[in-house]
Amino acid sequence: MKIETKVAKFNEPLYLESGRILESYELIYETYGELNEDKSNVIVVCHALAGSHHAAGRYADEAKPGWWDKLIGDGKAIDTRKYFVICSNNLGSTFGSTNALSIDPTTKKEYRLKFPILTISDIVKAQMKLYKSLGIEKAKAVVGGSMGGMQALCYSIEFPNFAEHVFALATTAYTRPWAIAINKIAIESIRHDPAFKDGFYSKDDLEAQGLPGLAIGRMAGLIAYLSPELFNKKFGRDYARTDGLYELFGRFEVERYLEYNAYSFPKIFDPLSYLYICKTMNIFDAGRNEDTLENSFKKVNCKLHLISFSDDMLFFPDEMEEIRDIMIKIGKGDQITYKMVESESGHDSFLVEVEKFDEHIINLLENN
Amino acid sequence: MKIETKVAKFNEPLYLESGRILESYELIYETYGELNEDKSNVIVVCHALAGSHHAAGRYADEAKPGWWDKLIGDGKAIDTRKYFVICSNNLGSTFGSTNALSIDPTTKKEYRLKFPILTISDIVKAQMKLYKSLGIEKAKAVVGGSMGGMQALCYSIEFPNFAEHVFALATTAYTRPWAIAINKIAIESIRHDPAFKDGFYSKDDLEAQGLPGLAIGRMAGLIAYLSPELFNKKFGRDYARTDGLYELFGRFEVERYLEYNAYSFPKIFDPLSYLYICKTMNIFDAGRNEDTLENSFKKVNCKLHLISFSDDMLFFPDEMEEIRDIMIKIGKGDQITYKMVESESGHDSFLVEVEKFDEHIINLLENN
Repeated sequence: MKIETKVAKFNEPLYLESGRILESYELIYETYGELNEDKSNVIVVCHALAGSHHAAGRYADEAKPGWWDKLIGDGKAIDTRKYFVICSNNLGSTFGSTNALSIDPTTKKEYRLKFPILTISDIVKAQMKLYKSLGIEKAKAVVGGSMGGMQALCYSIEFPNFAEHVFALATTAYTRPWAIAINKIAIESIRHDPAFKDGFYSKDDLEAQGLPGLAIGRMAGLIAYLSPELFNKKFGRDYARTDGLYELFGRFEVERYLEYNAYSFPKIFDPLSYLYICKTMNIFDAGRNEDTLENSFKKVNCKLHLISFSDDMLFFPDEMEEIRDIMIKIGKGDQITYKMVESESGHDSFLVEVEKFDEHIINLLENN
Repeated sequence: MKIETKVAKFNEPLYLESGRILESYELIYETYGELNEDKSNVIVVCHALAGSHHAAGRYADEAKPGWWDKLIGDGKAIDTRKYFVICSNNLGSTFGSTNALSIDPTTKKEYRLKFPILTISDIVKAQMKLYKSLGIEKAKAVVGGSMGGMQALCYSIEFPNFAEHVFALATTAYTRPWAIAINKIAIESIRHDPAFKDGFYSKDDLEAQGLPGLAIGRMAGLIAYLSPELFNKKFGRDYARTDGLYELFGRFEVERYLEYNAYSFPKIFDPLSYLYICKTMNIFDAGRNEDTLENSFKKVNCKLHLISFSDDMLFFPDEMEEIRDIMIKIGKGDQITYKMVESESGHDSFLVEVEKFDEHIINLLENN
C-alpha cells in the first residue's frame, strides 16, 4: 500500500461559523491507494480527538501502524487496492494542520489564545477545499468514529451530494452534558496547571517537563473511552509488584496503566490544541441552524450507516438510535442502516474491535 | 430530635491491618435520639468518602441539614423517637477524627505523609471501641452507603454478632478497577498540584488559595456519582448566559455546575485526607484474609440487606448481585435481601432518592 503524506496550503480566507476568518491555513493529509481516472473511488476518513492524518500503514521507523490500520489497507474492508483513501489532520489539531500554535499571518505571532474556535462544520469545510484542490468532487464514502463520526454526520447534512455512503461510528448528533463533563476535567486540569502559563508556555519547557494537567485530562478520557467490564478483564485487582499495599502512592495495575498512557500523552499532544478540540466537540450539534434535528436530517441524500457499540460509555448507543429513529420518522428509512456491535472495549471499540464490523462495512459498500 | 456532638479520646493503641499502630486517636461523633435502658435500640450509621458524623438534623446556623436527614429523624425510616442513632466521623477523615493532619504523639508533629494507611476494617475496629466505651454491645442495625456500605459489609463479616440487621447501599464487596481509576484522577491531580507541596502545604495557604488539584479530583467524582441521564435532565445543552458560545472558556451549564461544586470542595476537605480515604476505598476487599469471598460471607450471622441503584455508575448493581448470589450459594439465602431501586440520580441516589427505599428499610427493620 502506497502512503503519501502531503501538506496543502490555502491562501484564501476560510470564513468560520463564529464569524471569524482564517486568512490562510494548511492541512496535512495522507492518501493510500491510487485515485482512478474518473476520480470515483475516493473514501474520506475522519479522525477522532487524539487521532491524526496517519490512519493506516506504517512508516519505516514506526512501531505501530496508523490508528485505523485494521480497517484500511490492501485487502481490508476499506481496500486500498480499490479505493483512494484520504485522511487529513483536522484543522486545530496538533499534528501539522493549522492550529493554535501556528503563526497568525496578520500579527506574525503564534495565535495561542487568539486562535478562533472551530466547529465540526468548519473542519469539514476546510476538508472540502482540500478535495476541490485535488479535483475531487464526489466520494464513494465518508467514514469516521467519535469526533470523526461527528464530521461524517456533518458531511451527510451539509454536503448532501458529496458522498454516496456515510459511515458514522461511536458518535452522537449533539454532545450531551455527560461527555462535556468529562472534557471539563481536561479543560480545568490544563488551565490550572501553572506550567500552562495561561496558554503562554514555552514549547521547549513542555517537552522537557511535560504538562501534568494535560496528562490528568487525558486520564479522564482514557477511563471514559473504555468500560468497567474491560477494566475488570484487563486489570482485575492486580497490584504493582514493586509497590506496597499500604504505601500511600502504591498502585494497582490499572493505575500504572493510566499513569503510563496519560503521562506519555503530553509528549505528542499540545495542550492548547486539546482545549480547542474539546471546545469543538462540546459545541457540536447537528441540529443547530435548524428548528429541529429532524429538519437537519431531512437534508441527507446519501446512505447513512450508523454503528454503535454496546458498552460505549462516552456516546451511548441510544444517541445513535435517536438518529435512526429520526431518519425513519422523516421518511428516510430506506437511507439509514443501524448496527449495534456487542463490544467489550467501550468507546474505543471502533478502533480495536474492527473485526466485529468490517464485514458489515464491506457489505454496505460493495452491495449498495 | 436531639443532636449531640462529642469527641471520644482513646489513649490505647489501635493495631492496624498494615502492622502499624496508632498510639492514641480520637473520634468525633453525633448521636440522635435516646439510648434506651437495656441499650437495645442502637442504629449505627456509616458515612461515605466526603461525608461526616453530621448525618441528620440541623444546627442553628446551618442552611442544609445532615447528609442523610431524609432517612434519619423523628418519624422517618430510622426513627429517632425510637432508635438511638450513632454516626462517627471515620478515622482518617477531615471532619474531626484523627487524620493525617493530627499530631503524631511520638513526634509531636503532624503526621502528614507518615500517617498510616487505614483499611475499612481499621475504621470499623475504631468505631467498635467507641461503642464499647459507651457500654453498647449490640446494634439493632448498621446502615451505610458507598464507602459507608463497605463498612456495613465489614461489620457483617468481622463482627457477626454485633448487629441484627446490616444495610449496605450502593456499594461493593471489593473495589473494581473502574472505581480505582476514577480515584486515580484525584490522586494524580492532588499530588501534581504544586500548591500541594508534596503534602507539606500550609493550611492557611490552602484556605486562601484553594487547591485546584483537589477540586479537579472532586470533579471526576461528581461525574461518576451522577449519571448520563441525570445530566441530560438537569442540564441538557443549556449554555451559560454570560458566556459566548465561541469563547474558549465559555461554559455549558453542566460546566458551571461542576466548577461551582468542585472549587468549593477544597474549602471543606483536606487533600491529604482525600488521598488517604481514596487509598482506603481502593484497597477494600471483603474477601481478603480468606481464600474466597464465599468464605468471608460464611461468617455473616445478621440479616444482610443490599440495596443497589439501577443507574449507579460507580458501584454497579451487578456488584451487589454478586454478594446476593454468594449468600444464596453458601446456604444463607434466608439471611439476605436484595432490592434494586430504579433510580435517576446515579450513585448519589442513596442520598437523594430516599423516598424510593425508606419504606423498604422500615419493613425490614420493623417486621423481622
